[in-house]
Amino acid sequence: MNKENKLIPGLPSGFEDRWDKKLLLKKKLLTVIENNFIKYGAEPLETPSFEISENIGSFIAEDEANPMSDVFSFKDGDKSITLRYDLSSPLARFVAQNNQELPSIYKRYAIQNVFRNEKAGNGRYREFLQADFDIVGNVNSSQANAELCNLISATLLECGLKRDQFTINVSNRKIVQGLLDELQITEKKQLKVIRAIDKLDKPGFGIKGVEDLLRKERKDTSGAITKGADLNDKQVSKILDYLKIKDLNELKQNLKNPLSQEGIKELEDFIEVLGYGLNLDQVKTNFTIVRGLAYYSDFIVETNLNFKVTNNKGKEVDIGSICSGGAYAKLISRFKGVDIPGTGISFGVDRLLFALMQLDQFQLDEQKPVLVCVMDQKYLKNYYEILDLLRQNNINSEIFLDTKKNLGKQLTFANKRQLPVAVICGENEFKDNTVTIKNLKGVKGENNKTIPMKDLIDEVKKFI
Amino acid sequence: MNKENKLIPGLPSGFEDRWDKKLLLKKKLLTVIENNFIKYGAEPLETPSFEISENIGSFIAEDEANPMSDVFSFKDGDKSITLRYDLSSPLARFVAQNNQELPSIYKRYAIQNVFRNEKAGNGRYREFLQADFDIVGNVNSSQANAELCNLISATLLECGLKRDQFTINVSNRKIVQGLLDELQITEKKQLKVIRAIDKLDKPGFGIKGVEDLLRKERKDTSGAITKGADLNDKQVSKILDYLKIKDLNELKQNLKNPLSQEGIKELEDFIEVLGYGLNLDQVKTNFTIVRGLAYYSDFIVETNLNFKVTNNKGKEVDIGSICSGGAYAKLISRFKGVDIPGTGISFGVDRLLFALMQLDQFQLDEQKPVLVCVMDQKYLKNYYEILDLLRQNNINSEIFLDTKKNLGKQLTFANKRQLPVAVICGENEFKDNTVTIKNLKGVKGENNKTIPMKDLIDEVKKFI
Repeated sequence: MNKENKLIPGLPSGFEDRWDKKLLLKKKLLTVIENNFIKYGAEPLETPSFEISENIGSFIAEDEANPMSDVFSFKDGDKSITLRYDLSSPLARFVAQNNQELPSIYKRYAIQNVFRNEKAGNGRYREFLQADFDIVGNVNSSQANAELCNLISATLLECGLKRDQFTINVSNRKIVQGLLDELQITEKKQLKVIRAIDKLDKPGFGIKGVEDLLRKERKDTSGAITKGADLNDKQVSKILDYLKIKDLNELKQNLKNPLSQEGIKELEDFIEVLGYGLNLDQVKTNFTIVRGLAYYSDFIVETNLNFKVTNNKGKEVDIGSICSGGAYAKLISRFKGVDIPGTGISFGVDRLLFALMQLDQFQLDEQKPVLVCVMDQKYLKNYYEILDLLRQNNINSEIFLDTKKNLGKQLTFANKRQLPVAVICGENEFKDNTVTIKNLKGVKGENNKTIPMKDLIDEVKKFI
Repeated sequence: MNKENKLIPGLPSGFEDRWDKKLLLKKKLLTVIENNFIKYGAEPLETPSFEISENIGSFIAEDEANPMSDVFSFKDGDKSITLRYDLSSPLARFVAQNNQELPSIYKRYAIQNVFRNEKAGNGRYREFLQADFDIVGNVNSSQANAELCNLISATLLECGLKRDQFTINVSNRKIVQGLLDELQITEKKQLKVIRAIDKLDKPGFGIKGVEDLLRKERKDTSGAITKGADLNDKQVSKILDYLKIKDLNELKQNLKNPLSQEGIKELEDFIEVLGYGLNLDQVKTNFTIVRGLAYYSDFIVETNLNFKVTNNKGKEVDIGSICSGGAYAKLISRFKGVDIPGTGISFGVDRLLFALMQLDQFQLDEQKPVLVCVMDQKYLKNYYEILDLLRQNNINSEIFLDTKKNLGKQLTFANKRQLPVAVICGENEFKDNTVTIKNLKGVKGENNKTIPMKDLIDEVKKFI
């Protein structure tokens, strides 16, 4: 290959490499989340990245004319296959397929990447990790949904968040659904209305943005126009009135239709069960949350942080929900032969990590290796003996791999990698059966120590 | 949705769901592998599933006319993006891109899925997990490659394999490369020859299969024809002679060309350094291994199990290599501005797991939850107090979620899920401040025990 033909390394837009501190913290966060999922009784499930397109469809596309415009689909023989865009649709397919073998109440967790073929930017990625916990089966929904909220709270507390740093907002989709039915808004327009309300807390939206989307159209600051739901004045004003109500009792007085009343009753029952646990104060009813996904049927939840985070451009931003979900009565029954409801939550791992990294409450446990330096090629066998001794005692360790470098360069390398300890031995040490260890994090000039070989393990352990 | 429109749940061919024991064992295996990667001094790296197609290409396609026929590619604006088919190509792209920030000797591990758009079947999946460890930089290659073999051995031993149950086969690609050059085989034909040799140990191949592929064509048992490398008689016979040589000294006498001699010398140096460690007996030279991937330049390694495994059809099969790799001098320098070699290995996690599951040497540590039964709705608050107590003591636990079921149905559920313990409390217990626990794995009729509430945690711990 000549020089002109050489490639320029880079990634497609909307994708990111992860390494170093950021990845180590992510791994630690995943361990916390996974341990809590297990603690709450869930079993792991892993489904493939690809599904048959029609089996998972897309519940997120905003473009009606092209409902699969936001997913990655491939032609596969006479079928079409699609990379999953969430973990709920594959769960529904899996449960429908394996229903007979699963316990009557099936609690699974899944921690996997999802793919969205959307425009990237502003911290939005086209591949990102979700961590989901779901309860599938004909259960007491108050109990099941209270479990979800208890799990969210327990997990976030274990991540180092304090109780006043997050709020779990809950509502019941039946409440707003009852209102939409009452206002005789056509089914086709209803999802548009739900998505308009869902945008209320998005930057630059607010009540005016929602109103524009309920009416004919919304023009954003860039001049781009989004088509609205085209509701009439009465419909718009009733919905805006609804969004102003904060109190469950006031809501009960205002919405007299049976479906809204049913939703309110379910929310009250949920709050009662939640009160038996430790997290009642973390949870607030909030009737402006609706969740944009079409499959939610009743209980819905969004978890928000009560502090602002600073984005990469140094600007304070509201990071949005870090753990959301809800109940889906019909998602699984799209498949033949099953009629089982489910309810679940999904942690947005990257978002949560982004917020946690700004707080300094979530610390890294580093496990960097001890470096065995190679001072003299003729002692290579001895260096390997030291290396094996360290590893047999379960101490992460490595031998310097480029025998042409002097000690200075080896230590520069160790410092660049922030290694904790170097083992440095030459003729004197091997003659006396001793070993010199250097504490690389210590005070300059005072960190070399020559000790009997038999003390190596104990001494090294002091510095790692 | 009416009944006729309902979907039939299923997966595209070549993809699989994982759950239950198999997934739990896989997770345990990954922990063992990852801990050894860290122990040997590597840092984690996570690259996205998609790469710009030209940056990773495909080094596996057998179809010359369509070199990207075996990967999943997707049009993305004016670019093409491809799901990674291995973890070495993304590593090369990453190192080329971030070279300035990385340490001069960069050891990274990556545990991620790869995608191959091949015909599925016989345990071959189109998405599978690889676990890679690589050393990138201008290092002493004998030391670096010895580290790889030490790591393979340490990891497999920790998986429960005994020393006589696996062999790490090594060779040096320069040896066969020297021979091909000497025989004046054109560059275009060389990769075909390498791939023909690589198939030697595949079921149904053997020396005759290789010979056919070196000549005009090979017809397999189904009658399908594969085009061969079309070598002349002398070239074929020299290559077949080479494949019969087992001994390094004999090889040294037979192959006098400078490149083969260089490869032999590198192998000898590697063996010397390997001898300083604990795994010399695990490693054997084997000149019939060549590795089919085009980018290997010198050291190559394949790890084989010394026992047969039984496939899903009850037939004994040779499962092939469970950990392979080698050195790639030029993979990274395909990119502008870098000229760094690398060497690495890749564990085939699914294959290794498949073999381990047949041995019974790799055991599962289950962490199933304790079940708090709901005997009477009016004590729900008390049940939640017990649940919180268990969880606060870090005991995995759950409350039964369907309050309409009697105790018998709750215990049936617990048994189906193989839960270890049920907590069963009614009026008597709450009056006396006691609690009844049932050991679900104990002898029938002798497993109920009513104890003071304060002893709950200690007693439950005995059974989990």
